[in-house]
Amino acid sequence: MITSKDNNQLKTIRKLLQRRRDGLFVAEGEDLVDAAAANGWEPEILLRAGEDVEPELLPSSLGSGTRVVGVYLERWSEPGGDLSVYLHGVRDPGNVGTIVRSAHALADGPVILGPDCADPYGPKAVRASMGSIFARPPARADFEELQGTTIALDRGADIAIEDVQATAPVVLCLGAERTGLPTAVLRTASSRAHIPIRPEGPDSLNVGMAAAIALYARVRMRARA
Amino acid sequence: MITSKDNNQLKTIRKLLQRRRDGLFVAEGEDLVDAAAANGWEPEILLRAGEDVEPELLPSSLGSGTRVVGVYLERWSEPGGDLSVYLHGVRDPGNVGTIVRSAHALADGPVILGPDCADPYGPKAVRASMGSIFARPPARADFEELQGTTIALDRGADIAIEDVQATAPVVLCLGAERTGLPTAVLRTASSRAHIPIRPEGPDSLNVGMAAAIALYARVRMRARA
Repeated sequence: MITSKDNNQLKTIRKLLQRRRDGLFVAEGEDLVDAAAANGWEPEILLRAGEDVEPELLPSSLGSGTRVVGVYLERWSEPGGDLSVYLHGVRDPGNVGTIVRSAHALADGPVILGPDCADPYGPKAVRASMGSIFARPPARADFEELQGTTIALDRGADIAIEDVQATAPVVLCLGAERTGLPTAVLRTASSRAHIPIRPEGPDSLNVGMAAAIALYARVRMRARA
Repeated sequence: MITSKDNNQLKTIRKLLQRRRDGLFVAEGEDLVDAAAANGWEPEILLRAGEDVEPELLPSSLGSGTRVVGVYLERWSEPGGDLSVYLHGVRDPGNVGTIVRSAHALADGPVILGPDCADPYGPKAVRASMGSIFARPPARADFEELQGTTIALDRGADIAIEDVQATAPVVLCLGAERTGLPTAVLRTASSRAHIPIRPEGPDSLNVGMAAAIALYARVRMRARA
């Protein structure tokens, strides 16, 4: 039982919660630790409150604290699959984590992180992935490295996402909510498409919503077309 | 220029950020205050840092602080529209706010809040709505009061959301992520439907993603059917 906050494992966890050490990350809570185990990830550190450590000493990014913390080695997938998502400049970790979860639910390929995206292994992103980060670790690539048909989500495009004719593999490309994808990506993508929204509605959808809708539209609507 | 933190307007804002006063709420930042103005909402209080108040005194729920804060009277819509969303037990304010935004983008009816939902006028929900809360204030109702065809999202249902035959008005009903809708709602809804996800995927989608997908599927896929 750890009884001092100066314990080295606790120091490591505190550092990782601040993302000050590359290559390792923290998963907080039973659900995430269970998801890690179910997907065959061995923890580098695993501490349960009351068993391995005094409960009040277990570091947590959650206001409510946590009963278990696991530390794992980051893994990275290669881009691939018939359908995947490429993100460019998506800086919100909650959005990145949720998109990892949606892609795991709807696509066979990983989320591919381009430049200026939030760290998918930060505590918020890991939590938002609800364990999907363990089932389908993200990939890293620049847009130029993507293989197959790239469809750039662009609110100025003329065609709806489900109407794009494309042969697999298809990579759905999404940019930051305000600025969208860089011009270079829009110019070089195989197609540009939009998600039709009401003219009297908001300027845009949340990028997580846009990714979920685009995935569903490709999987379900293209399947029928 | 306000120069004391004991100013009454600042006290009101601090209370509202903690949601300790009903009927009023706070919008933080230029984008939200602009969205309020664009939709004809008059602020009860409007304070700009450096103009009306010493910048360091302006209360904010954001770590980074904010340059402008508006205080407004809550408004509530009546349920209505050909397509709307009913939420039951959706406790995360970010999800509630994002669903308000998605419904504004994709449907003509408001988000209807049933029991045990997060406060849509709390700071996180207002922020996640990205101003859509001003364009389309939410409604409040119990499930029994809903008019028209109710489609309950239920992962155990046999039919996909876009395949349900329904006459307008249609209300898409979503429950909490883990527990789903209560049995009473599942039994009484006009139909039950699911969002097909990969069998090897996660157990469920984020409720915000599910709402966005269900809305899009009804708007776009039913339009073609």
